[in-house]
Amino acid sequence: MIGAAHAETFLHEHVPLTRQMQVRVTGCDPEGVLLAAPLAPNINHVGTVFAGSASALAMLAGWTLIHARLAEWPFETTLVIRRARIDYDHPIDGDYEAWCPSPAADQWDRFGADLRAGRGRLELAVEVRREGRRMARFNGVYVALRNEEGDQPCPD
Amino acid sequence: MIGAAHAETFLHEHVPLTRQMQVRVTGCDPEGVLLAAPLAPNINHVGTVFAGSASALAMLAGWTLIHARLAEWPFETTLVIRRARIDYDHPIDGDYEAWCPSPAADQWDRFGADLRAGRGRLELAVEVRREGRRMARFNGVYVALRNEEGDQPCPD
Repeated sequence: MIGAAHAETFLHEHVPLTRQMQVRVTGCDPEGVLLAAPLAPNINHVGTVFAGSASALAMLAGWTLIHARLAEWPFETTLVIRRARIDYDHPIDGDYEAWCPSPAADQWDRFGADLRAGRGRLELAVEVRREGRRMARFNGVYVALRNEEGDQPCPD
Repeated sequence: MIGAAHAETFLHEHVPLTRQMQVRVTGCDPEGVLLAAPLAPNINHVGTVFAGSASALAMLAGWTLIHARLAEWPFETTLVIRRARIDYDHPIDGDYEAWCPSPAADQWDRFGADLRAGRGRLELAVEVRREGRRMARFNGVYVALRNEEGDQPCPD
């Protein structure tokens, strides 16, 4: 799978809001993906992290985990999120992180088999953290589609 | 309730990411709240709206509807989102909007009575739209807390 620096460059180049949010990819390996963002560009009216920024970082952590794996695959895919849910347990009063652990091997295997046949679906759980403490729980359903040959969803 | 211009100024001043997203408040009246944002600052790797930006605009539409109402109230409150869910039905390939219709009068009444007693809870449905077509469905649970006298959650 691609590493943290490569994944961060991809996000900053292709999703410009991640630059505004100052998203950093601080971990990207078979264990999972860890993203980080500072409070300042993501602050809200009460001095804590804007709920939309917390949700976006979690969503990106899940997306990056699958994207990093798919980069190894011998065919082109398009990866999107189909559904998301987030529970905000505590206000986040500083810099924050989103941790998406890799799912079990059998889930990857099923996802891979389905994707080879045209369409894979993977549900991922992400924790939003502040100094190691869980502040919000995110759950996302991601869908990857195998592109037809010659189909170029990402023209740049 | 406060109007669209006032609500937009509030968002841009207190939630800086809304400036980066170029969020505009294009409707804010007793019928509901309509927010708009262009594709360019919210674009993703396949040239459509980043899922995090779609979710954030919907979240802000619901938040703004309650905030605009609470501005009339004779005491200070803190309004947060507790839970959110979004279903992405179609990729959004251009400028987009989030429409949050006002809930029924009896829901406002119950929310108001509970908030006067200390804590009100309101669930809102928001549609994310592209040229009038529904592209995503958002549901948010918002909680307003009545601040104790002298408590200033918003020090600026």
